[in-house]
Amino acid sequence: MTDTAAPNPDLDELARELDHAHVFHSWSAQGSPPQLTIAGGKGTKVWTHGGDEYLDFSSQLVNVNIGHQHPSVVSAIREQASLLSTIGPPIVNLARGEAAKRITARAPRRFHKVFFTNGGADANENAVRMARLHTGRDKVLSTYRSYHGNTGAAVVATGDWRRIPNEYARGHVHFFGPYLYRSEFWATTPEEESERALQHLRRVIESEGPSSIAAILLETIPGTAGIMLPPPGYLAGVRELATQHGIVLILDEVMAGFGRTGRWFAFDGYDVEPDLITFAKGVNSGYVPVGGVLIAEEIAADFDAKVFPGGLTYSGHPLAAASIVAALDAMESEGIVDNARRVGAEAIGPGLEALAEKHEIIGEVRGEGVFWAMELVADRATREPVAPAVVARAKGELAARGLLAFTAENRIHVVPPCVVTDDEVGQAMDIYDEVLGLDLLG
Amino acid sequence: MTDTAAPNPDLDELARELDHAHVFHSWSAQGSPPQLTIAGGKGTKVWTHGGDEYLDFSSQLVNVNIGHQHPSVVSAIREQASLLSTIGPPIVNLARGEAAKRITARAPRRFHKVFFTNGGADANENAVRMARLHTGRDKVLSTYRSYHGNTGAAVVATGDWRRIPNEYARGHVHFFGPYLYRSEFWATTPEEESERALQHLRRVIESEGPSSIAAILLETIPGTAGIMLPPPGYLAGVRELATQHGIVLILDEVMAGFGRTGRWFAFDGYDVEPDLITFAKGVNSGYVPVGGVLIAEEIAADFDAKVFPGGLTYSGHPLAAASIVAALDAMESEGIVDNARRVGAEAIGPGLEALAEKHEIIGEVRGEGVFWAMELVADRATREPVAPAVVARAKGELAARGLLAFTAENRIHVVPPCVVTDDEVGQAMDIYDEVLGLDLLG
Ligand SMILES: Cc1ncc(COP(=O)(O)O)c(C=O)c1O
Ligand SMILES: Cc1ncc(COP(=O)(O)O)c(C=O)c1O
Repeated sequence: MTDTAAPNPDLDELARELDHAHVFHSWSAQGSPPQLTIAGGKGTKVWTHGGDEYLDFSSQLVNVNIGHQHPSVVSAIREQASLLSTIGPPIVNLARGEAAKRITARAPRRFHKVFFTNGGADANENAVRMARLHTGRDKVLSTYRSYHGNTGAAVVATGDWRRIPNEYARGHVHFFGPYLYRSEFWATTPEEESERALQHLRRVIESEGPSSIAAILLETIPGTAGIMLPPPGYLAGVRELATQHGIVLILDEVMAGFGRTGRWFAFDGYDVEPDLITFAKGVNSGYVPVGGVLIAEEIAADFDAKVFPGGLTYSGHPLAAASIVAALDAMESEGIVDNARRVGAEAIGPGLEALAEKHEIIGEVRGEGVFWAMELVADRATREPVAPAVVARAKGELAARGLLAFTAENRIHVVPPCVVTDDEVGQAMDIYDEVLGLDLLG
Repeated sequence: MTDTAAPNPDLDELARELDHAHVFHSWSAQGSPPQLTIAGGKGTKVWTHGGDEYLDFSSQLVNVNIGHQHPSVVSAIREQASLLSTIGPPIVNLARGEAAKRITARAPRRFHKVFFTNGGADANENAVRMARLHTGRDKVLSTYRSYHGNTGAAVVATGDWRRIPNEYARGHVHFFGPYLYRSEFWATTPEEESERALQHLRRVIESEGPSSIAAILLETIPGTAGIMLPPPGYLAGVRELATQHGIVLILDEVMAGFGRTGRWFAFDGYDVEPDLITFAKGVNSGYVPVGGVLIAEEIAADFDAKVFPGGLTYSGHPLAAASIVAALDAMESEGIVDNARRVGAEAIGPGLEALAEKHEIIGEVRGEGVFWAMELVADRATREPVAPAVVARAKGELAARGLLAFTAENRIHVVPPCVVTDDEVGQAMDIYDEVLGLDLLG
């Protein structure tokens, strides 16, 4: 429990009252507001004012990669706040330069420059802007199973239901990505899925007209859409198609990047190098709102003499920059990315496999690092997804047992911080086991 | 000078090196990167690592309303960082509720709810989304002389040059707002300008088809576009047109709000009540990236049972929320908004009028509070704007004399923090006087 305050459940109640009176919430009906208050945290644990403790196997919105309240990131924020909390983008600031240096150091050699934004959505907006200006073309291709953010272009690039009420941008085309468990291509092996998905993409490119296409925007590993690891050769094939047609390849590493997969970037595990990389979340674990675009030199060079027509008041915010410096340094020196890889391979993977053996309701488990999905199905043979109410019930039962879960459609995503311990994974597996053993379908 | 560090010009040099190697900048050609490093600040002053001090009469991007490094805002950020730096939007948090309570308390009575975003652009994105869903209509009307942000809909709602390379959203229509000094309506008095601008807007609404128009999006006082105070009756007339046709009136108070005009909201000075209010900047002076939408109850109620299709990872970020609470409380208890009003009326206004008497190059000065513009003209009779190079030179000469200026097109905007003192205004006026006395046109 917190060492900074005595338990005080009245504050939970006050927080709920203020929330329900005055806070309008993302992606939800306001008539069913959130109930759980969180007041503090440490590593994989969070707690209420009243002292109830939870294992955070959601990492919030899959962003707290370094765990809650990492002391060196907290210190860096406190120190920068005391030095200089804010400064505008047209003024040089040391923390910003140090952050950009550390981010580019993790990227392939063609990437020297970072454009900072406030989050993932505006990172994608600016990457799309760069691709359009670089190619002089309009269209952006992205997959139906994707999420890229809630602003103008980002939400229309998004493939899932969130796009539908928001289709006010032009130039967006969607295609199907590889997803063997629910193949759109009647494939039966990963190799076949990869080959057929590439043929589908090639046909979409040909049919849209290669010379009209500015960018292919892909989550390296689709996250909210279901954590589908790309099958062998897929990303290399996409790269080849992009290169062949002069199309900019943007990899969205907002959720997959900075440790989540057990690697610095998810694409480090594949035979692919993008032209633009978008990031947010894991870069500083969301301690201060920030995101950005890593820009390959041939695109950055376009704007040496020409004005880049994008920008924002808080681009390269010093508090965000200081938190990035501290987060990346701690992830490096404490082996946090390695921990994510090891825990994934040794504890989460085997744990989920064991659950799948035991519980009929699990159709498939897949993932790596601290980035895993369990597909819940009403019928293993037909793979029919369970109804949303089943997942909602599972989520409630998990919370009742002290585990915060991330759920999407018919899935539970197992996405703890990268600092999660084997012991915490063991506790979580026991809770999942108990809940999946309930008669959830009944 | 800073009390936290000894002068160290080497750090300025290091910051510049890192910036030029790794940071990609907003709205500019990268080949002419910024040179000035800022390491710390206090109130209206900022300084380099080497100890060179500047009067910040830009408030950075017109956001540091409470001044640099206000102690209670810095403390609040430090304390919240130690308690809980980040938590996702679907979890209740006390700091967030306290921030929302304080913001709604400043708004008209119909406003009970706040949707938090990361900045001004995504505030406008979400306001436009709400207006479209509320009306079931598409089109958004905004003025040519405006800036609303760099993302999909916000940048196309923007009227200035920044829209042109970014026109990828549909449903946006632009009209001319009132601007007597450069009237689009051949008007010669404020009353005539108001009446004619309203007739123009009425004709645009009729011609576009009122039943196709979701929203009129207006900066209460256009900021970057030139700080044009609305003439008598204009905003009331816009309100009437909106009401008559069932159009949502969105007032963008990102730059004008939270003290800049000497009032909490700029529209408090006019006979108008909007349906949605967007804010950012002054709400916490940009100490942590944040923005949001204040929602009138009849629009908020649409989403009680229906899902609101917008959202973002850092909506209602606890660090941002804590900084809002501290900033608004300090602005209240220290009379900071009143100070902005008084200094505007007693020092800045008279000071600028005196400069205009003296310097032929000043075509007009206008503004209120700490929100003023000087129009520089090559010829007072024709009102021909000076060339961009003239303003760039003036900006450089001001900086050389220790004053950070905000410039746009042919104008110098006089926009210090709300905490600026009469003495600092006096120092600034002397510097402006000296620079405007140079042969800038030659
Ligand atoms: C892959 C991906 N891209 C972009 C975003 C949008 O990021 P933000 O919510 O910070 O705008 C998200 C958020 O979940 C994401 O998962
Ligand atoms: C009136 C107005 N609206 C919106 C914005 C966009 O805000 P942000 O830069 O935080 O996206 C600005 C920024 O200058 C502004 O002045």
